[in-house]
Amino acid sequence: MVTAREVAKLAGVSQATVSRVLHDHASVSEDARRKVRRVMAETGYQPNGAARAMRTNRTGTVGLIVDDMTNPFYPELVRVLGAELGAAGLRMILWDSAGPGERAALDAIDQRLVDGLLFTTATAASVPLARAIDRGAPVVLVNRTVPDLACDQVDSDNHAGAAAAARYFAAAGRREVALVDGPRDASTARDRGAGFRAGCAGNGLELPESRIAGGGLSHDGGRAAMARILAGGPAPSAVFCANDFSAFGALDALADAGLRVPEDVWVIGYDDIPMAAWGAFGLTTVRQPLADMAATAVSLLRERVAEPGRAVRHQRFRNDLVVRRTTNGQEVLR
Amino acid sequence: MVTAREVAKLAGVSQATVSRVLHDHASVSEDARRKVRRVMAETGYQPNGAARAMRTNRTGTVGLIVDDMTNPFYPELVRVLGAELGAAGLRMILWDSAGPGERAALDAIDQRLVDGLLFTTATAASVPLARAIDRGAPVVLVNRTVPDLACDQVDSDNHAGAAAAARYFAAAGRREVALVDGPRDASTARDRGAGFRAGCAGNGLELPESRIAGGGLSHDGGRAAMARILAGGPAPSAVFCANDFSAFGALDALADAGLRVPEDVWVIGYDDIPMAAWGAFGLTTVRQPLADMAATAVSLLRERVAEPGRAVRHQRFRNDLVVRRTTNGQEVLR
Repeated sequence: MVTAREVAKLAGVSQATVSRVLHDHASVSEDARRKVRRVMAETGYQPNGAARAMRTNRTGTVGLIVDDMTNPFYPELVRVLGAELGAAGLRMILWDSAGPGERAALDAIDQRLVDGLLFTTATAASVPLARAIDRGAPVVLVNRTVPDLACDQVDSDNHAGAAAAARYFAAAGRREVALVDGPRDASTARDRGAGFRAGCAGNGLELPESRIAGGGLSHDGGRAAMARILAGGPAPSAVFCANDFSAFGALDALADAGLRVPEDVWVIGYDDIPMAAWGAFGLTTVRQPLADMAATAVSLLRERVAEPGRAVRHQRFRNDLVVRRTTNGQEVLR
Repeated sequence: MVTAREVAKLAGVSQATVSRVLHDHASVSEDARRKVRRVMAETGYQPNGAARAMRTNRTGTVGLIVDDMTNPFYPELVRVLGAELGAAGLRMILWDSAGPGERAALDAIDQRLVDGLLFTTATAASVPLARAIDRGAPVVLVNRTVPDLACDQVDSDNHAGAAAAARYFAAAGRREVALVDGPRDASTARDRGAGFRAGCAGNGLELPESRIAGGGLSHDGGRAAMARILAGGPAPSAVFCANDFSAFGALDALADAGLRVPEDVWVIGYDDIPMAAWGAFGLTTVRQPLADMAATAVSLLRERVAEPGRAVRHQRFRNDLVVRRTTNGQEVLR
């Protein structure tokens, strides 16, 4: 198959001129344009990308489905996944699962415009996810997982990380605990809620329903949930939140109520997004090893593309508590 | 050209089975696979995407070049641009201008894998930007602009927005002003710095060099710049920062120094990213109309793809001051 370089040589022009002709650029003389077009027609030249995709049945492009880019966790995940894909010479098409994004991802799979899909926001109810798998498209779930789904999955041990938060509160004598819970359809939030409950039970901490509020995974959700808990009875002495973003909201609600952190109330979030370390927050949190998770997800997807029939794998990473000011910087237990 | 639907009909199988064969999925009977492959060979079937790209010389995909996804401004810009592209039925390949991203974008242009590029982080020194334009690729700059560059550009009036901040300080009698400045190669930061200086001069405010520090556009940069200003002399009574992210850093540095906001020092940022409104910050800032800018950028790119020879356009939007707690919520002037 003839290349742009060969077209340029045969037409007696530069490669940049060939590229300009391809893009219908005005700054090409009519003479050069005619020569290039004639050589292209005679040699059957096709631009590399589409031609290579047809020849190899590979596009070199991967689809990434994300959610709620206002939560800095997702941009961070996009950044590390993008770096891994770029290092592997792969391009990344980004779809937002809100709106028409998942449907567009499915169309791209049907049209063979991407080699596979990375879902970061999978739920068991996701129709496009189920259909992508039904079509045999290479799919890897990263961050959120769906039990028993026949595809490669990468997550971290959210249950153990949340249980460690409860153990930490118990060891510090902060016994009046509260939970700003996340949505049950997201495996991350579900596992964290269950892990915190299990950690409380295992360490003799009572967690009455009046000190649990569903707050979603947003700042505003966390703020509203914390306000409901405070309205429902005496203030807790320690709060665990489903993610850092909702913890920032909980901190705002505590400040609204005139409560001091960490003197009156300790707060722990989840994810260790960069701003958790800012002076304004100093948020104690549980860290997921995002870079390792991204590298594993990309390599699982590449292996799946190369060998569609191989057995499905699920890889889980451990999480670590990062202690900061919102728990008084006290490393009572690691 | 034959479609997947017609292949399915001719092979006597479902369309999902055709898709599974395309993706080498294991759960297809050998018999069905053979039938589908035979029909594909006989009819010359090619998966839609690549074939359509070759036929039409259009990919339906646009490249987006961003920077520093840890600054929530960029995810927000990605979100609004993605929504605009999605509504137009276009896909978005995302490249980070750090690392190999810009080079990869240029390769994609050369290979005709994208119909055009949206640069959000353009500088005059950007080699890939210059080469993309040299190749006649449809290019639109959004957010940051480069004077005299022959491509469509969309920005907002950063100079006027920053000048309004200086006027606001002057009207409130906050006369000891300081500037946490951004990098000069970014048009946004350059225009904001120049606008604030002009606003000070025009309103009788002195801005000595000792109260100006380059802080970049990051939280840590803003924090370090504010600390240098405080170390260099008496504390200012009002600070203007190149963006919200650096303003959050400046707030941390002011707190470190025991200064109260807004009692001792007023602070104004730029961009109005969502977290500027959080209780923890309550940041007064200047708002860019991002959704309008995104819609304009996407429509300029589509017009450029459809008509490569048309005259270059530069569209600039106005900015508005959003008053919050860090300037005592005082609407002294709008």
